[in-house]
Amino acid sequence: MTEPGRSTEGDVDELELLTRPGREEDLRTFLLLLHPADVAELVEDVDERTAVAILRHLGAERAADLVSELDGEDAERILRLIVPDELRPILAEMETDDAADLIQDLDELTASQVLAALPVEDRGDVEQLLAYDPESAGGIMQTELVSIPIDSTVGSALEAVREAASDIDIISCFVIDHVGHYCGHIALQDLVLTKPATPIERVMEPKIVEVKPDVDQEEVARIFDHYSLVELGVVDDNGILIGRITADDVHEVLVEEAEEDMLKMAGTAAEPEVIYSGNVARIVGQRLPWLGSTFFAGLLATWILHRASVVFETAVILLMFVPVITGMSGNVGTQSAMIMIRGMAVGHIEREDLAKEIVKDLMVAAIMALVCATLVTLIVASWQQNVALGLCVGVALGLSMLSASFLGSTEPALLQRFGIDPAVAAGPLITSINDISGVTIYTFVSLFFLQYL
Amino acid sequence: MTEPGRSTEGDVDELELLTRPGREEDLRTFLLLLHPADVAELVEDVDERTAVAILRHLGAERAADLVSELDGEDAERILRLIVPDELRPILAEMETDDAADLIQDLDELTASQVLAALPVEDRGDVEQLLAYDPESAGGIMQTELVSIPIDSTVGSALEAVREAASDIDIISCFVIDHVGHYCGHIALQDLVLTKPATPIERVMEPKIVEVKPDVDQEEVARIFDHYSLVELGVVDDNGILIGRITADDVHEVLVEEAEEDMLKMAGTAAEPEVIYSGNVARIVGQRLPWLGSTFFAGLLATWILHRASVVFETAVILLMFVPVITGMSGNVGTQSAMIMIRGMAVGHIEREDLAKEIVKDLMVAAIMALVCATLVTLIVASWQQNVALGLCVGVALGLSMLSASFLGSTEPALLQRFGIDPAVAAGPLITSINDISGVTIYTFVSLFFLQYL
Repeated sequence: MTEPGRSTEGDVDELELLTRPGREEDLRTFLLLLHPADVAELVEDVDERTAVAILRHLGAERAADLVSELDGEDAERILRLIVPDELRPILAEMETDDAADLIQDLDELTASQVLAALPVEDRGDVEQLLAYDPESAGGIMQTELVSIPIDSTVGSALEAVREAASDIDIISCFVIDHVGHYCGHIALQDLVLTKPATPIERVMEPKIVEVKPDVDQEEVARIFDHYSLVELGVVDDNGILIGRITADDVHEVLVEEAEEDMLKMAGTAAEPEVIYSGNVARIVGQRLPWLGSTFFAGLLATWILHRASVVFETAVILLMFVPVITGMSGNVGTQSAMIMIRGMAVGHIEREDLAKEIVKDLMVAAIMALVCATLVTLIVASWQQNVALGLCVGVALGLSMLSASFLGSTEPALLQRFGIDPAVAAGPLITSINDISGVTIYTFVSLFFLQYL
Repeated sequence: MTEPGRSTEGDVDELELLTRPGREEDLRTFLLLLHPADVAELVEDVDERTAVAILRHLGAERAADLVSELDGEDAERILRLIVPDELRPILAEMETDDAADLIQDLDELTASQVLAALPVEDRGDVEQLLAYDPESAGGIMQTELVSIPIDSTVGSALEAVREAASDIDIISCFVIDHVGHYCGHIALQDLVLTKPATPIERVMEPKIVEVKPDVDQEEVARIFDHYSLVELGVVDDNGILIGRITADDVHEVLVEEAEEDMLKMAGTAAEPEVIYSGNVARIVGQRLPWLGSTFFAGLLATWILHRASVVFETAVILLMFVPVITGMSGNVGTQSAMIMIRGMAVGHIEREDLAKEIVKDLMVAAIMALVCATLVTLIVASWQQNVALGLCVGVALGLSMLSASFLGSTEPALLQRFGIDPAVAAGPLITSINDISGVTIYTFVSLFFLQYL
């Protein structure tokens, strides 16, 4: 078996041999031994002709799994070469949320072809899903689920499961009232455990939480985590059950959101599909604008130092310590910002504790500032044999670390209030602000000490 | 209902009233309406006496859920006040992985009391789980599962499910041979769907992947993601099935790992439970050491500038542009490092493509460097009316951005080779290295231009 997630050169070569005419039976046998996820890895590395041959010999159900695993570019490349009659049975096997995700990733022409080839009974659902924000509960839910009326019995629920079980994955049955309101659910294992004549109402778990389709996917992940859910019902404005979100949907959300946050913190636009593409020009387009704030902050810092040249021309040595000041305040600021951002996102820090947390962060920064300031004062004073110089650098370092901690810990909540993702705050923005405030503090402290000492 | 994850002042007050003598019935009714996860939120905000009263009135099963939800500090606080006879029925309801997680979080004394109060049949399993690295497959698996021999029928499998279903959550049955080797599994819904007389071997899904207990939890998460698993079997060195990992375990891993990575990137030791505690001294202990590299890098940069003072005393203005050089190279380096780290972690970048990715990153950096260098040259030359000065800053900026991109994109893979978590590379370390290389390049470029222009 290939290591999960890594296709080898050997497999690719073997596959291309197997797609030659007359070897259909061997190809089918080869594919049977592989998981669709592993086939998808291989398909990314082979030419179109081979990819289409693979799709044709997989069987509709496994082909549907394969297509769900492909990224947009690969899916386009292959689906363009397949006629609608071949596409239809594959799409019939796909779940509505996977179909919607696929269509979202395709160019307009291919997307409309896929939409047209969907089974009539699914098309409306998929179009509905496409209308939701892809990063909302509606965008990640699927409409396939087993629902049973609250006045039915365990036996009839099991019957409903048997009817649906060949098409969809079932973890539990959703219980609804006569209008369609979501009332609760019953796990499949409890259905199996209970006598068929038992009324559902007696054995179901009453609903503890539900979401509307416009809830953000990060909030969905937080609810899953908080209640250790395996499944979550989605309801419309009237409380009518319209879909479900399963653990693997949330799994994808967690990976995606963490990635986007990290890219933002590094100061790149948060589009992994561009950043990891081969398109150098578009990557530059995503990274360069974020360097802008650093660029102008740097020039601003230079201008501030230049304005104060009366100090710095008489004591050039002071200018040489600028990297210590900017480096340290940048670092402390990033620590404080990141701790606040993650604390808010994961729920370690609640809104009402924000002020307390900022004070705590300042206390931590004060201790660290005291240690670093003392150390640098001693080093500079003994190296340059000049106590005033040592105090300039030391006091400025301590104050700029305090200011950086305060800016870093308040900025995320501030950005959030203005509807900006706080993750942005741990990136170049906070470093830039800290560079400028660090240099400004340094200038004033130096002016003060050189004048009075 | 309280908003998930947030207990309100009102709820806390009401709870404390309800724990007064004579109101036991009201307390029980109030608790029945809440999910254990919400009760856990409340327990964090009430005094010990109230917390213990709540635990006593929840019933063993829900009390077990509650205790699993508590963090170490709160669990200790409460469990210390409970006698072994009260603790025993609660622990009997806990799953082995939750019990092991709980014991791991407790101080030695409380941990040994809990271990002693475990049911005899679970104690061995829990001790075994405690022996594994908490961040490995063994550390997150549970030993409770339903396994059936490969030569049995669907009917007897359903029987096994019925026997186990009241104690554990079942998603599928694991199929083993007569020795205990893991052979495959069958989803609960397929059991329900199939005639009882059908041999298991005909309907089971053959095993596609398994893990040994020492596999890292991040690799487990990657396998879950790749194969869209809901459950994964853990086997010992002989292939004997010893446990299972479920989707919610992996969910926790994803949240935890993303958090640890982000804290590392911000330059703090990766222990969220310390960072978000109230212990200022310990937080300083986790953050201060990481400032060390920045501190000494800053001083080293100063020393380099000082060594080259022959240049900088004659052209003090050059020193004032140091924030531009260090800021920009730090930013570009972090971008490149983060893109490489996430790409490697999530699988966008495979080992054999590493060299190609580094070249691509250099091309991106080259374009960005050209843009920024040109801009800064024009700005400085026209501001200072001095082309040589403009070229000094511009050429040095361009070269230091290129060097930062190269260091940033190669360092993660390099650190990984030495067994160090690459996430560290996006933090202060890379920024420090880039500060020093930036200042060094600046010095040499300035020496060159001032001598020859």
